[in-house]
Amino acid sequence: MAASDPYPAQQFASDNYAGICPEAWASMLEANQGHAPAYGNDLWTQRASDALRSLFETDCEVFFAFNGTAANSLALAALCQSYHSVICSSLSHVETDECGAPEFFSNGSKLLVASAPDGKLTPQAIRALACSRSDIHFPKPRVVTITQPTETGLVYSLEQTRAIAAVCRELGLKLHMDGSRFAHACATLGCAPADLTWRAGVDVLCFGGTKNGMAVGEAVVFFDRALAEDFDYRCKQAGQLASKMRFLSAPWVGLLASGAWLRHARHANACAARLAAQVRGLAGVELMFPVQANGVFLRAPVEVLQGLTAKGWGFYTFIGGGARFMFAWDADPVWVDALARDIRELASGVA
Amino acid sequence: MAASDPYPAQQFASDNYAGICPEAWASMLEANQGHAPAYGNDLWTQRASDALRSLFETDCEVFFAFNGTAANSLALAALCQSYHSVICSSLSHVETDECGAPEFFSNGSKLLVASAPDGKLTPQAIRALACSRSDIHFPKPRVVTITQPTETGLVYSLEQTRAIAAVCRELGLKLHMDGSRFAHACATLGCAPADLTWRAGVDVLCFGGTKNGMAVGEAVVFFDRALAEDFDYRCKQAGQLASKMRFLSAPWVGLLASGAWLRHARHANACAARLAAQVRGLAGVELMFPVQANGVFLRAPVEVLQGLTAKGWGFYTFIGGGARFMFAWDADPVWVDALARDIRELASGVA
Amino acid sequence: MAASDPYPAQQFASDNYAGICPEAWASMLEANQGHAPAYGNDLWTQRASDALRSLFETDCEVFFAFNGTAANSLALAALCQSYHSVICSSLSHVETDECGAPEFFSNGSKLLVASAPDGKLTPQAIRALACSRSDIHFPKPRVVTITQPTETGLVYSLEQTRAIAAVCRELGLKLHMDGSRFAHACATLGCAPADLTWRAGVDVLCFGGTKNGMAVGEAVVFFDRALAEDFDYRCKQAGQLASKMRFLSAPWVGLLASGAWLRHARHANACAARLAAQVRGLAGVELMFPVQANGVFLRAPVEVLQGLTAKGWGFYTFIGGGARFMFAWDADPVWVDALARDIRELASGVA
Amino acid sequence: MAASDPYPAQQFASDNYAGICPEAWASMLEANQGHAPAYGNDLWTQRASDALRSLFETDCEVFFAFNGTAANSLALAALCQSYHSVICSSLSHVETDECGAPEFFSNGSKLLVASAPDGKLTPQAIRALACSRSDIHFPKPRVVTITQPTETGLVYSLEQTRAIAAVCRELGLKLHMDGSRFAHACATLGCAPADLTWRAGVDVLCFGGTKNGMAVGEAVVFFDRALAEDFDYRCKQAGQLASKMRFLSAPWVGLLASGAWLRHARHANACAARLAAQVRGLAGVELMFPVQANGVFLRAPVEVLQGLTAKGWGFYTFIGGGARFMFAWDADPVWVDALARDIRELASGVA
Repeated sequence: MAASDPYPAQQFASDNYAGICPEAWASMLEANQGHAPAYGNDLWTQRASDALRSLFETDCEVFFAFNGTAANSLALAALCQSYHSVICSSLSHVETDECGAPEFFSNGSKLLVASAPDGKLTPQAIRALACSRSDIHFPKPRVVTITQPTETGLVYSLEQTRAIAAVCRELGLKLHMDGSRFAHACATLGCAPADLTWRAGVDVLCFGGTKNGMAVGEAVVFFDRALAEDFDYRCKQAGQLASKMRFLSAPWVGLLASGAWLRHARHANACAARLAAQVRGLAGVELMFPVQANGVFLRAPVEVLQGLTAKGWGFYTFIGGGARFMFAWDADPVWVDALARDIRELASGVA
Repeated sequence: MAASDPYPAQQFASDNYAGICPEAWASMLEANQGHAPAYGNDLWTQRASDALRSLFETDCEVFFAFNGTAANSLALAALCQSYHSVICSSLSHVETDECGAPEFFSNGSKLLVASAPDGKLTPQAIRALACSRSDIHFPKPRVVTITQPTETGLVYSLEQTRAIAAVCRELGLKLHMDGSRFAHACATLGCAPADLTWRAGVDVLCFGGTKNGMAVGEAVVFFDRALAEDFDYRCKQAGQLASKMRFLSAPWVGLLASGAWLRHARHANACAARLAAQVRGLAGVELMFPVQANGVFLRAPVEVLQGLTAKGWGFYTFIGGGARFMFAWDADPVWVDALARDIRELASGVA
Repeated sequence: MAASDPYPAQQFASDNYAGICPEAWASMLEANQGHAPAYGNDLWTQRASDALRSLFETDCEVFFAFNGTAANSLALAALCQSYHSVICSSLSHVETDECGAPEFFSNGSKLLVASAPDGKLTPQAIRALACSRSDIHFPKPRVVTITQPTETGLVYSLEQTRAIAAVCRELGLKLHMDGSRFAHACATLGCAPADLTWRAGVDVLCFGGTKNGMAVGEAVVFFDRALAEDFDYRCKQAGQLASKMRFLSAPWVGLLASGAWLRHARHANACAARLAAQVRGLAGVELMFPVQANGVFLRAPVEVLQGLTAKGWGFYTFIGGGARFMFAWDADPVWVDALARDIRELASGVA
Repeated sequence: MAASDPYPAQQFASDNYAGICPEAWASMLEANQGHAPAYGNDLWTQRASDALRSLFETDCEVFFAFNGTAANSLALAALCQSYHSVICSSLSHVETDECGAPEFFSNGSKLLVASAPDGKLTPQAIRALACSRSDIHFPKPRVVTITQPTETGLVYSLEQTRAIAAVCRELGLKLHMDGSRFAHACATLGCAPADLTWRAGVDVLCFGGTKNGMAVGEAVVFFDRALAEDFDYRCKQAGQLASKMRFLSAPWVGLLASGAWLRHARHANACAARLAAQVRGLAGVELMFPVQANGVFLRAPVEVLQGLTAKGWGFYTFIGGGARFMFAWDADPVWVDALARDIRELASGVA
């Protein structure tokens, strides 16, 4: 590395910092030949929808939205009236990082927040919230949303997902899965996407494309087709219908056909594990959560965190002062190791 | 053309059928190098915003949204409370083709529709609507929106724009310009974008990128910076903040730096003129509106229109049975001429 | 009348100018004894609901809202999603006098307006609007709303109502009736409320109490009980659940049990007919619409209208310069005759 | 008391169970003479507004809404855009008992909830919430709402109110006061309404009429007149403009002119104190909060609470199993004492 090169050349503050992966790019390039009907009436959108149906081994309804904020909020709005409520964890993205988007799209549905120090909802927490009130002075519980993997990098097991779905069915609640990093959960669990979703009882999945290597776009997958009624109108009215839809849908074709969707997720997960392995047991440094997907959350002395910043490493500060590192499809092990080295060096200086 | 080739190879049903232009593509390619901060905190977004400020010769506030539905609706929502109303023409896209998006984003602002057979608002029509009611039982007029060029392919002259702005100022109304094809109006009028907008009295412009050759994205340009207060929050909440924003902003850099934004618009306009020139005066065929931008609207005998469909030409049916043809940045004069030839042939058969 | 008395002592500008009728007052007085559970869990609300079920001869769902704006808007919101549309006449109150309330409560449902010079919707107009568009770029038609009697004082006959309901059923639309003066239509037609509503195909009725002699309050009556699902939550969230509900419901008990609801309406209708009879055929004076309920709409020379104003008579100016006179439960024939006399005198002066 | 009389004849489950007080009734009766212009353009509404301006010793803007849900939600909506947030206590009525009304009226404003075991907000809690986030991914804090007295029956002192207002001013937040029982706070503190509100820094007050003896209606009082811009349109659109407004406004004239608003509050407070005095120190019975207004919250053994229910006493169960008793303008000391006697008896049986 020459003296003038920036250090580090890669950041792990967010998996949104990565660009477009080669497979998505190739599909966009291919899709950019000649003319195509607008608003999703094109072959690429048909192919992408079919590919998702094939991946999920069921005749689900598929829609493409621009980003996760909209995908999740529109899906929840499709399930809720304004006087309904959505049960979520206190660390869920819909609660902490969407600037009130779910409330906006649904015209007022309230989020009922279960305190979840590790970001995971449990059947017990769902039941407690769903049954806490049953009078008309409080929004009526209607949906449970879980993030898979969670915002803390944890993965719901098949059993955990099924248990949550069971309590939802018992209580008459729908189950929505925020899967902005769904591929990473599949990579961790090694099971079929169908097993993790509709076979486990999930009604709607928002499957993230952006964090999987696309420029823009998420797929909203309705396993319960009745819930998808008029969802195309909803997307249109909410400014989520792309005129040149092929550029949102084609990347899915490339990602799914090539298996890149899973390969990239595995790579990202492996980079997280690689970092975790190198910092585990360091004096004063603690993994805040088991590393199960593509994120590492470290609690470390303030001198270590300030030292990382001084060395040029970016990261989000998590609850209680931890540092979040996220790995994308293009994370370079060289730089993962560089980060680990810096952490080790800083930690040893403190100890 | 070999016998097996589809005929026609290019369609002019919509300028949304075209793909990504080379200049936009090149910028995306260049932007897809390495990592970049998310949510617009990247250099490409800074450069694109600066390029737009430079183009408009003023320190305007710039935001990037995914599509025109959202750009226009969010801009109007920023100007309106739910009990306000928006004056528009009866052929305006916000009235006829946004599935109630302006009402949705603003939580109920009503569109006050001026009947406009040619799609153009006039100061008289604005005044009549704005002054028709002043009681609290009717939404309070707050904004005028004009489409430049109109949905009928007409261009507001500088004088017309200024006259509309004058009546807006007099009546305390804001002036919004839906510029999904703004470049085409600039190409027609040959004047500076600043002259057509803020110097003429426009408060907010939604500048279309998609119809100018981008994959996705529109720029919302606030000339009155006070109106842009918290617009970033508004975009975020409404699902219009791209995480990998550079892919929305970089194409603007390429389009503007190269002059392609204007060159493409001129080409599209020229193709419209080319078609118009070849069908003008045909028996039974009539140009519904003067051809001033990139659209041609034809009234023709039903046999002609059915004949075009039979030959494989797609088009939208316009009010009263006309046919709309729109030309994009990549319109091929060969196919424009082929369309003209088919129209002539069919018209002569009818006559 | 002494010289110092105001002239006229009664105005017919609006039937909202009248106060509380004796029967409603007596019920409020009786209800104001001791304590009662809040939010509608009281005996008066139970009795009022039962009285309405009895009146309509069916097990309908009944809710009480504060005013017509809310009753109609909430009922429409219960039938619509934000991307739906509501077919109404161009003179309907929801279009002309609710300040965008239907759009607000539904979060954006658009009103599709059928031009109706006399205020009446027709099956043809409904069909034309409902079938004009079927693409996702335009709000999906979902409900038809008719005002019975209309804002022009006309009454839909049983046959007309049934014909409208038939086209609704055929096209998959729900039928809502704005009955802010429903009693007056019953008085005119002399048929059972059930015949005019659910037996004719009406799904939801907003039955006006205020214009029938109450201080405040309208009944929302769902004949299709499935449509009433969670309507209590909707009322609560929208600020339409009265804590001391008995004062909204008790007047219904008094009005219905005594037959006053119909007697008052007959009286008001008779006063309208009385005025009409005295001005019919006057030179230059024209009844804009047949007088079928409690309103009289007069077209008259400007000198006549100005003369009325000069004499102290208030009225709303209707489309094209007409004068609207509305008669309430307490209209005094003495003053009706005084108004007629003044019109005759002024008209003769002009002629 | 005869054997057949119900026991108890009066309930203290809610101060909404009481009817209309004599002074409000007398004003309604007086207002129900003859005709009056609709929608607030009547003399009673003018008189009521003036009476409130006089009470508050300032030229405030006054509006009348139907109930507290709407008054508070509309006031907050007037202060907020959809992407703003409202800081409130975890026990505030807007958070716990309005079924998402604030979110509905504002189209998505989020409530930021400060955990407040006694229901009171503090400057520290406000500062912590207001400063916790300042990025666009989280709703922007804009308003603080405090309930005076709180839902736990506590009263903010003048100093506490001023301290909260000071932190609001420092942080650029507006201060809203939910005063559904505002009269009771005035009665407790014995200071001028002006001191408790605008002189202390309150921008908007929702002054409760219903709990003060009216049938229906709350006054929304804007001390900062600029914040009231177009509030009349907002009320109309949201279904909160009464056509026969005089029946909402006249009771205010009666209550204020006679001093009954304060006298009734004092009586209700005294009844609460009377109960508290008789149960203080009972074995196993605990006052959950100091009794400062018209509510008493008791923690008591389950046998005591069940025993009260068995004896016919109604009450709301409060957090952690407490019992809430609220006293209205018409609370009868005889029945207050009867309740106290029953509690004592039951408590002694347990001890």
